Amino acid sequence: MNTGAEVRAACRSGAFTGPTPGLAMGYVQANLVILPRDWAWDFLLFCQRNPKPCPLLDVTEPGDPEPRFIAAGADLRTDLPAYRIWENGTLVEEPADATRFWRSDLVSLLVGCSFTFENALLAAGVPVRHIEEGRNVPMYRTNVACREAGRFRGPMVVSMRPMTPGQAATATRICSRFALAHGAPFQIGDPAAIGIRDVDRPDFGDAVAIRPGEVPVFWACGVTPQAAVMEAKPPFAITHKPGHMFVSDLKDADLDGEGVT
Amino acid sequence: MNTGAEVRAACRSGAFTGPTPGLAMGYVQANLVILPRDWAWDFLLFCQRNPKPCPLLDVTEPGDPEPRFIAAGADLRTDLPAYRIWENGTLVEEPADATRFWRSDLVSLLVGCSFTFENALLAAGVPVRHIEEGRNVPMYRTNVACREAGRFRGPMVVSMRPMTPGQAATATRICSRFALAHGAPFQIGDPAAIGIRDVDRPDFGDAVAIRPGEVPVFWACGVTPQAAVMEAKPPFAITHKPGHMFVSDLKDADLDGEGVT
Repeated sequence: MNTGAEVRAACRSGAFTGPTPGLAMGYVQANLVILPRDWAWDFLLFCQRNPKPCPLLDVTEPGDPEPRFIAAGADLRTDLPAYRIWENGTLVEEPADATRFWRSDLVSLLVGCSFTFENALLAAGVPVRHIEEGRNVPMYRTNVACREAGRFRGPMVVSMRPMTPGQAATATRICSRFALAHGAPFQIGDPAAIGIRDVDRPDFGDAVAIRPGEVPVFWACGVTPQAAVMEAKPPFAITHKPGHMFVSDLKDADLDGEGVT
Repeated sequence: MNTGAEVRAACRSGAFTGPTPGLAMGYVQANLVILPRDWAWDFLLFCQRNPKPCPLLDVTEPGDPEPRFIAAGADLRTDLPAYRIWENGTLVEEPADATRFWRSDLVSLLVGCSFTFENALLAAGVPVRHIEEGRNVPMYRTNVACREAGRFRGPMVVSMRPMTPGQAATATRICSRFALAHGAPFQIGDPAAIGIRDVDRPDFGDAVAIRPGEVPVFWACGVTPQAAVMEAKPPFAITHKPGHMFVSDLKDADLDGEGVT
């Protein structure tokens, strides 16, 4: 599966239900949050007010399952490998097809993810430790509150990649170009200042090795909006299953600059 | 009046009702669109889908007149020098205070404007011809359609500044940093390719001189969303009077980079 379209076709036919990291390299992958229209307004505002953790790639019209701006012809009900169905903040099902849960008032919001800038870091020779170690990226709740929007609130969640201070400067320069993939680091080198007590004990994902001479570098993380949604307990929501993302037709290079225009 | 707060206080007291260009230099000025919540959803989506002409600086909660993220304590009902009141797409009044038109369902959307990047161009020695000539910037309807959102649609409107091809490169580099002030030029040097028949006859604003060796450089323009709103004829809307903008607490430098974070 070398393109977003191929991954989506395999999901739609039921042939593929696995995680998407490493698939269709170079194609932009996205987090998915689907909410009833009334809740989607609050969530859209939450993303507008917190663009670093919540870079919006596409938002559908109510009832329309096609993300026409990042993947014309795709169907968000079938084209992801696995979904999570939520009722009042409780996970009730993990289907491979969300068609039977669809409603005419549902709005789909697609949020950029870190794969895009990680590819750019690797291309520049900057290490991405959790990839080297075959683990999930370490993620932490911070003591920094997001800007509230309607019923949504919560702390900024960050991901961490260890590197040398020189590599941190290179990473900052590179990631600044990708505002729709979390942008420049949120912070470099001082976990205590953002309320992280122990970098070896992440709140989500796996711990990774920080080598001598390296500092932890923190990025705003796409788990932030997901945590805010779960905390708000909307009556109904559909999300992707973690690691089982929507693969779009955008290329990483399309996000290099001012964003989707 | 050297700061955004001073301009707003003068507007609130009724002492100032004039145009804002040149006031409180260095402070970010914004276009204002106020809509009933149901219409504001469509407009928010329109801005999300068309970020170059519609860079959102702030969006309020329904009924809340305080743009708390770009000017805490400000009151959008009183703190602009002049307003326009619209009913079904028709201009019905031009008051200096919008308090008596306020409703609990109104959402205010503040959209970035060109003053921010014009200041940066002038600082870099790039000419801004309409300022030199003491005129309004020339603006043109293009044949490029914006992405539709709900009831909002319409052509991209662009502004034009003539300069040499070398200055155009400098301007592109500088403006790329200001995604929340329309970003890099939309197009350089070929008006016919975007449906502009005669650069000497703008659709809005004034014509300016294009000197020998200069090319017209076009930027996405904040008139785009205003035209889309008027075209859609919402039952009720409040906007700023043209040239009579909201002056925020943000500094131009705050928009240099990834945006308001």
